[in-house]
Amino acid sequence: MILATFHRQDGALALGLVQREAGLIIDAQVAAQRLDGRPEPRFQSMLSLIDGGPAALDRLRELGRRAMAEGLACLPLSSVRLAAPVPQPPQMRDFSVFETHMRNAAVGMARLRRHRQQADWPLPVPEQIQIPEAFVQQPVYYKTNRFSVVGHEHEVQWPRYSQRLDYELEFGIFLARRGRDISRSQARDYIFGYTIFNDFSARDAQEFEMTAPFGPTKGKDFDTGNVLGPWIVTPDELPDPYALRMSARVNGELWSDCSSAGMVHQFEDMIAHVSRDETLHAGEFFGSGTAGGGCGLELDRWIQPGDVIELEVEGIGKLRNRVVRSP
Amino acid sequence: MILATFHRQDGALALGLVQREAGLIIDAQVAAQRLDGRPEPRFQSMLSLIDGGPAALDRLRELGRRAMAEGLACLPLSSVRLAAPVPQPPQMRDFSVFETHMRNAAVGMARLRRHRQQADWPLPVPEQIQIPEAFVQQPVYYKTNRFSVVGHEHEVQWPRYSQRLDYELEFGIFLARRGRDISRSQARDYIFGYTIFNDFSARDAQEFEMTAPFGPTKGKDFDTGNVLGPWIVTPDELPDPYALRMSARVNGELWSDCSSAGMVHQFEDMIAHVSRDETLHAGEFFGSGTAGGGCGLELDRWIQPGDVIELEVEGIGKLRNRVVRSP
Repeated sequence: MILATFHRQDGALALGLVQREAGLIIDAQVAAQRLDGRPEPRFQSMLSLIDGGPAALDRLRELGRRAMAEGLACLPLSSVRLAAPVPQPPQMRDFSVFETHMRNAAVGMARLRRHRQQADWPLPVPEQIQIPEAFVQQPVYYKTNRFSVVGHEHEVQWPRYSQRLDYELEFGIFLARRGRDISRSQARDYIFGYTIFNDFSARDAQEFEMTAPFGPTKGKDFDTGNVLGPWIVTPDELPDPYALRMSARVNGELWSDCSSAGMVHQFEDMIAHVSRDETLHAGEFFGSGTAGGGCGLELDRWIQPGDVIELEVEGIGKLRNRVVRSP
Repeated sequence: MILATFHRQDGALALGLVQREAGLIIDAQVAAQRLDGRPEPRFQSMLSLIDGGPAALDRLRELGRRAMAEGLACLPLSSVRLAAPVPQPPQMRDFSVFETHMRNAAVGMARLRRHRQQADWPLPVPEQIQIPEAFVQQPVYYKTNRFSVVGHEHEVQWPRYSQRLDYELEFGIFLARRGRDISRSQARDYIFGYTIFNDFSARDAQEFEMTAPFGPTKGKDFDTGNVLGPWIVTPDELPDPYALRMSARVNGELWSDCSSAGMVHQFEDMIAHVSRDETLHAGEFFGSGTAGGGCGLELDRWIQPGDVIELEVEGIGKLRNRVVRSP
């Protein structure tokens, strides 16, 4: 199934079931009302659908079939404005599991540091970068601001404190349910579905703040900086999430051509690692981290205000945003 | 005012106004019901009180006066079980602003690293530690798990993956309201109040994961690891938060004797820094980071399962917890 959150004409957010081939989106709550004569509390939002578990998904699938058959509650997909599938996730972690990105980004950061210091020391090459032990042995992560989430086609505001904004080509999962001490073999059952993540990053702020050992903060934390979407694809539609072509286009030009095959740790490893002695909650988001080659920092190419960034992940879709100057 | 969240006899959480000298706590909602004949929606929880702004605080102060005068809705403070003042903050950032801690902790981490590597290289002394540029120029921070919060006297579960659990003596603020691009001079108006924070830390996990540059994660993220309390003291009761004696006792023995005077950046600086191009929300928590000398890592002294840790911050109170083995 493909599940979206969208703006109704009155601006209210609604849960939608996307029929990709037909180019339609079914308003789940309207379908329940018209076909069964009553609203369905579990269709109130994506989080309430997730909380409803497999039974809620089954009911939505069945309603969707009937809505399509009767032509009820179906809107042209092109006519609706999508929101982030979960507009305010309960918590967001972003991991770093692509070794190629780790090496290239370290070189890119060294380049920014050299520029900041107005120095001319030689840059390392990616093969010289020392990969941290922790990166090899476990999925490392940081937490990002759950309030700065926007969706497909939403404008992204360039933070005024940055001269070097960047995109990051990622995908990620939403957790299906609450759990703790989840084994790797059980972990797939905790994946509700997949979406695309553009983790916009203020690289100059990030380079400077990461001279302290606490990870990225204002390099990632600014309004509209976390773009999720266009929707959620459930695991049955994406049997192998670890062999997906991923790409980023800037104003239509291909900048990043990557694959999800290079993940040193998979989402199942992340769930097992984080849930040790720690309760995870339905609807939490885990990002993959940037695919190898999946950002301008690695390429030393830089986006500008006005640019349109389009991330595509095979089997999920396309996530497109224009970057604008802050008002 | 001193504001608490506590468990009623039926287990439900309630908002309380603490009368420290009298040793009483007033159940805000019961007071509204009995004295004005109707419940007060803004007294539903600490977050709804915060959202209610100064008018809600004024109403609570007035009701408190009448409740005390009439002896209504008052419970002995010693008879109630406190929860964290905000049991599930919307978001939690923890900063690092004590230079003495930064130096001592770096030595402590080097000691743990040497132990992990079974090496015998010489340890640095605190004066040799290179302070990161970012630490000097801005308040650096990471985000911690908002779901792992517990309160005063709650048992803290020792994470099974750690051999080296530690306390951290901190205090922090809850934000009074939503805002963005807040100047330093306006920032104090955004402080709702102060509480004590014991940021329990699994030092061996932290040392290892911080070989990667993303900051602490499983070193901080485990159930019951973030202790807040015992209550919130509003700014009018704490005119100078930057000259407070802070101490930590383990089983009654004084281990840490510190002061809040050593903060390189103050809460007002944190608010100004983080809110650049970023919306902050009412109820978000900012921690001070560990006071200089305020943890076992700095002292190379280690707590054990069964130990009782008591943090005291002048003008706020005492926050006490027993550490137990995980079930």
